[in-house]
Amino acid sequence: MTRYKLTLEYDGGPFVGWQRQSNGLSVQEALEEAIFAFCGERASLFAAGRTDAGVHARGQVAHVDLEREADPDTVRKAINFHVKPHPVSVLAAEPVDGEFHARFSAKWRAYRYGILNRRSPLTIDRGHVWLVNAPLDVEAMREGARRLLGHHDFTSFRSSICQAASPMKTLDILEVERSGEAIEIRARARSFLHHQVRNMVGTLKLVGEGKWTPGDVAKALAAKDRSAAGPTAPPDGLYLMEVGY
Amino acid sequence: MTRYKLTLEYDGGPFVGWQRQSNGLSVQEALEEAIFAFCGERASLFAAGRTDAGVHARGQVAHVDLEREADPDTVRKAINFHVKPHPVSVLAAEPVDGEFHARFSAKWRAYRYGILNRRSPLTIDRGHVWLVNAPLDVEAMREGARRLLGHHDFTSFRSSICQAASPMKTLDILEVERSGEAIEIRARARSFLHHQVRNMVGTLKLVGEGKWTPGDVAKALAAKDRSAAGPTAPPDGLYLMEVGY
Repeated sequence: MTRYKLTLEYDGGPFVGWQRQSNGLSVQEALEEAIFAFCGERASLFAAGRTDAGVHARGQVAHVDLEREADPDTVRKAINFHVKPHPVSVLAAEPVDGEFHARFSAKWRAYRYGILNRRSPLTIDRGHVWLVNAPLDVEAMREGARRLLGHHDFTSFRSSICQAASPMKTLDILEVERSGEAIEIRARARSFLHHQVRNMVGTLKLVGEGKWTPGDVAKALAAKDRSAAGPTAPPDGLYLMEVGY
Repeated sequence: MTRYKLTLEYDGGPFVGWQRQSNGLSVQEALEEAIFAFCGERASLFAAGRTDAGVHARGQVAHVDLEREADPDTVRKAINFHVKPHPVSVLAAEPVDGEFHARFSAKWRAYRYGILNRRSPLTIDRGHVWLVNAPLDVEAMREGARRLLGHHDFTSFRSSICQAASPMKTLDILEVERSGEAIEIRARARSFLHHQVRNMVGTLKLVGEGKWTPGDVAKALAAKDRSAAGPTAPPDGLYLMEVGY
C-alpha cells in the first residue's frame, strides 16, 4: 500500500463542492470514481480544504492510499484519463509516508479571491470572478483588511454551519491589489473557518464601496456575531491556491 | 442618426466567429439582434477585426449607426440587457463622427495569445488557452519571433482563404513572456492577414519545442509558401485585446 499526495486543480462550477453529497457530483466523488476505474480500488480521498460548491482550486492537496503498485506519474495520468470530462486535473502525484495527512499535516492554506470591478457584464470570466459594479477604493479595503490580521475570534465571519471546534484563528496574510479593473484579495492562514474568506471579502467590499469605514471592520470583528459583518461573497471568485506542509 | 463606437468583450467559444454566417450564431448577429430588441432598428455592425470561431475579444471595436436618440450609456446598458445570455458585453459606447470607421480608421490591432505549458489537462482555463505539454524554451521562441518583426511578405503565415489584397504587412510587436507555466505572446500590427497570429504562434511553438531553430523561422518567412511554416494554433488562446485609432 502506498500513500499518494495529489496536487489538484478544478473548476468548482459544475460541482456541489469538494465533499461527497447525495444531491450531486462532488470533486471527491469524480476523483474516487476515476481511481476506481483505474485500479478497481474503492479508495477514500482526504483533502486539505473542503471547498464549497462553485469554489475553484489551483493547488488543492489530497491524499489517498492505493494497493496497486504504480509509478507516481502513471497514477497522475491514469486519474486524469479517467476523470474526463469533468474539469478536474491532477497536477502532481507523489508518494508520501504514512504519517502524511493532507488535512492534518497542513501548516497553512492560501486562497485568492478575484473581483472584476466594472459596470458591464462578464463574458470570458463568467463563474470565475465576482463582478462588482460600484467603484471600489482599494486603499480603504486594504486598511479594512489590516484590522483582521492576527489571532482573533472570527465568529463574525463564520458560517452558522461551521463545524470547527473553536472560532479562534490566526490570519497571517490578507492583501488587496488592483490591476486595472481586476482586484485580487490574497488570504493565508493555518486554517480558516467555514465561509471565512468569502465573509471577509463581502465585508471588505462594503469598505471599498464607502458604505463602511475600515474601523467598522474592527467593530464587526469585536462583535463576535455573524450578523455584525458583511454578506458572503459568491463562490465564483474564490480559489484555493496552495497548501503548505 | 448617430454613429456609436462600441468597445466589446466576448468569449468566442460558443460563436461561429464575428461575422454573420448561415451555419450558426455569430457575435455580430447576437449584437444586431440585441440592437433590434432595444430600438427596433435593423442596423449593421462593422468591426475592426473579424475574429474567427473560438477567438475571444477583450477590446474589439465596432461601429453602428442608430436613428434612436439615446444617451451613450443607455445604449451600452440596453445592448447588454438584450444580448443576454450570450457571452458578449459592451464595455463602452461613445458617439463618434460619421468619418469614423471601426475597420478602416484603425491604426493598429493588438492581440494576445495564451499558452499553458504543462502536462496535466486544463480545467478552469478550458477553451481560453492552448495547452502545450512539451516544455517550451521561451528564449528560443523570442529569438524566432524577432525574425518576423518588420515589413515582410507574410504569405507563409496566411490562410488559403485570406481575402487581403496584399500579403505585405508590417509586424511592430511580437513578444513572448513566461510567468510560471503561463506563456503569453503579444502581437501588434496595423493589420494582420487571416490566421496570421495563429500561424506565427504555431510556428513559434515548434521553435520552443526545439524542433525548429529561430533561423528556420526566417527561412519559412522567406519561402513565401504556407506549407513552409508551422501549423495553425487553436483559436482558444487568441484574444483581440485593443484597437488603436
